Amino acid sequence: MRRRNFLRHSLATGVGLSSFSQSRYRETTTDSDDLIKAMNRPVLNIPEIKSPVIIDHIELLRYKDNFICRVISADGAVGLSVSNNMQMVSLYPIFLLRIKPFFIGKDARQLEKLLEELYVFKSNYKLQSLALWVPVATLEFAILDLLGKICEKPLGKVIGKIHNEKIAVYQANNYRGRSADESLEKIKKAVEESGAKAVKFKIGGRMSSPENPPGRSERLIALIREELGSEMKIYADSNGSYDLEEAIRIGNLLHKHNIDFYEEPVPFDWYEETRIVAKKCKVPIAGGEQEGSMHNFLWLIDHDALQIVQPDIFYFGGMIRSMRVARMAETKGLKCVPHISGSGLGHIYMAHFVSALPNAGPFHEYKGPSEDIPMTCATSSLRSEEGLITVPKGPGLGIDLENEFLKLHKVIPV
Amino acid sequence: MRRRNFLRHSLATGVGLSSFSQSRYRETTTDSDDLIKAMNRPVLNIPEIKSPVIIDHIELLRYKDNFICRVISADGAVGLSVSNNMQMVSLYPIFLLRIKPFFIGKDARQLEKLLEELYVFKSNYKLQSLALWVPVATLEFAILDLLGKICEKPLGKVIGKIHNEKIAVYQANNYRGRSADESLEKIKKAVEESGAKAVKFKIGGRMSSPENPPGRSERLIALIREELGSEMKIYADSNGSYDLEEAIRIGNLLHKHNIDFYEEPVPFDWYEETRIVAKKCKVPIAGGEQEGSMHNFLWLIDHDALQIVQPDIFYFGGMIRSMRVARMAETKGLKCVPHISGSGLGHIYMAHFVSALPNAGPFHEYKGPSEDIPMTCATSSLRSEEGLITVPKGPGLGIDLENEFLKLHKVIPV
Repeated sequence: MRRRNFLRHSLATGVGLSSFSQSRYRETTTDSDDLIKAMNRPVLNIPEIKSPVIIDHIELLRYKDNFICRVISADGAVGLSVSNNMQMVSLYPIFLLRIKPFFIGKDARQLEKLLEELYVFKSNYKLQSLALWVPVATLEFAILDLLGKICEKPLGKVIGKIHNEKIAVYQANNYRGRSADESLEKIKKAVEESGAKAVKFKIGGRMSSPENPPGRSERLIALIREELGSEMKIYADSNGSYDLEEAIRIGNLLHKHNIDFYEEPVPFDWYEETRIVAKKCKVPIAGGEQEGSMHNFLWLIDHDALQIVQPDIFYFGGMIRSMRVARMAETKGLKCVPHISGSGLGHIYMAHFVSALPNAGPFHEYKGPSEDIPMTCATSSLRSEEGLITVPKGPGLGIDLENEFLKLHKVIPV
Repeated sequence: MRRRNFLRHSLATGVGLSSFSQSRYRETTTDSDDLIKAMNRPVLNIPEIKSPVIIDHIELLRYKDNFICRVISADGAVGLSVSNNMQMVSLYPIFLLRIKPFFIGKDARQLEKLLEELYVFKSNYKLQSLALWVPVATLEFAILDLLGKICEKPLGKVIGKIHNEKIAVYQANNYRGRSADESLEKIKKAVEESGAKAVKFKIGGRMSSPENPPGRSERLIALIREELGSEMKIYADSNGSYDLEEAIRIGNLLHKHNIDFYEEPVPFDWYEETRIVAKKCKVPIAGGEQEGSMHNFLWLIDHDALQIVQPDIFYFGGMIRSMRVARMAETKGLKCVPHISGSGLGHIYMAHFVSALPNAGPFHEYKGPSEDIPMTCATSSLRSEEGLITVPKGPGLGIDLENEFLKLHKVIPV
């Protein structure tokens, strides 16, 4: 009797990770084997922890629209995370019914294997999108915090080693709805105030929405490089605004005006078109924010459809899965610039994740600080200072939520 | 100034449907233009309704784990649906926060356009998967019921015209975990009792799970045709169990033993591999149950990756979207065999949808009847009788939920 390859592989490596991906998936390619190896390498780096860390309690706590996940081990160690609240407000039952039950009683040191099994548990794969992955990431961050506290290492060392102690950030903005000239004035003013060395501006109308006002993008693209100077890194984000033909035309314009990358030229689920835009345009293509599938990232990277890889560490289900994507990118010599959405402690998770990236891009997204979440941090101001964020060095997430704030939160009953 | 093509198209057609898809998406293909035209043709067939049907109230009601959606128009007309309860129990906040608010005050006759706009509303596209689409379908079914009641037509006539008054069903089973011989005995017994002319059996272990017991599938494939006879339609479903190499090997075995289709040979998000399996194997490939993206269906159909197309009318966001997929399939001469999950009134929605399909497959999935939902129907027993279900002929869904049962349900507060 013949067994499937991945079973043999899983038994051989003893981890059972990304089972499907252990076998070749293309007809003829040598690159893809390297990508699959990179994807499957273990991520967790916790040899210090010699005995099981049994997950005894998982609580999802809520105060207004703020969600906190608390994980408590059988030995009484505690890990905390703050969720992506904008999403969690409509996703918390998925956390409570489809994720939490699987993890109770499990050994947190097996987190990588557990995440693979969770995908099949209760047919969770059917929800593959941020609807599944934001709740998963919320739990993963709390478990990583727990593990970091136990071995007294910051998150970056729990998922690898520290490559970057400070993270350079770019200035993001969204002036859709304003004219090109008004948008440009606002971008220039913000750059002057912050001293930012990189900016990202919006083009198109977002997915199928029409651009407003019409003609805005083309004029903005023509002016922005001249206005901001040749030293500035300038990124353009279309949020999937274009069809193939228009995406290529805009891509050529961006290249002509020396824009440094072009994000989501076509809708996120237009895989083949993304590849074609990348092939036809000289401007580097960035993408991955909406991607929920590891296998689709493999395809996109393997087919040279992306030059900058942008998993969202919440939307893609956490740091471990995102690190696998970063490693595939590294195999191809590509940079990883994780996307991060703007609520909760997103910028702190981003900083930890980027700290462990050997192939981090030069500038990263910054939407913090999180004024609405009272906390202290002994090792970082948690703010952009002259365009740099210092990564917290304390154990786990490296911050302390204010106790009074934490106490306002009540456990959500299942 | 140059505008995007789809704007011109939208203005020209006056519907604004599937905006992105109106333009070509491949470098060189004539087929894809035909597919896109088929996808974009209006589906709703309600010329009788001359004045606006303003959606005044949308309520989501719950009793235990049963969810009912009630839509009430400004004129007092009422439409009802029962949700996919297995999923809705963890998705109802998405309905309440991300879908309901968009529809209040809108004209239900514009449902097709509204569904397109809903996708971009609050960035709902980020949740593309059944997590978004099951709540959308729940609302769509209630609105279709409302429209059907207003124009006194069954759902099949609201979304097209009646091609099938009775639906032949196949017998589904899941004996994973039992030996090939035991599975076969159970299948034979069930076939004898029901007189079914078509069956579907499970192979592999489901996604990355190992097959249990080992060797089960290969033995079952070798025996089932001989045991059930040459007249029986026999379908095999792997639920994404295999990697590429094994999927092809199993596909060749299925062909050797005259199996009629092979469902989900590889995981659902392995698009290119699905295409390769279809190219290399002679057994027809079926798929689409997990697919949430219209564009990915376009790709799969255009690239000959599927020979039987199986959107799930709940998981894919309703009858209108699923009809667009069926029409693309029709353009290529392919059959549509919608998937339906087993809770609520799924089999009744399936019957109505199939009634309007010009390219329905010969046999369809049946997981009913819904014993737990008390209702009456004057025009159908709602059961499989000698392998046939009669499609209800009354207005809208064509059934009446028992009033006492309905009254047990309470509105879920937002």
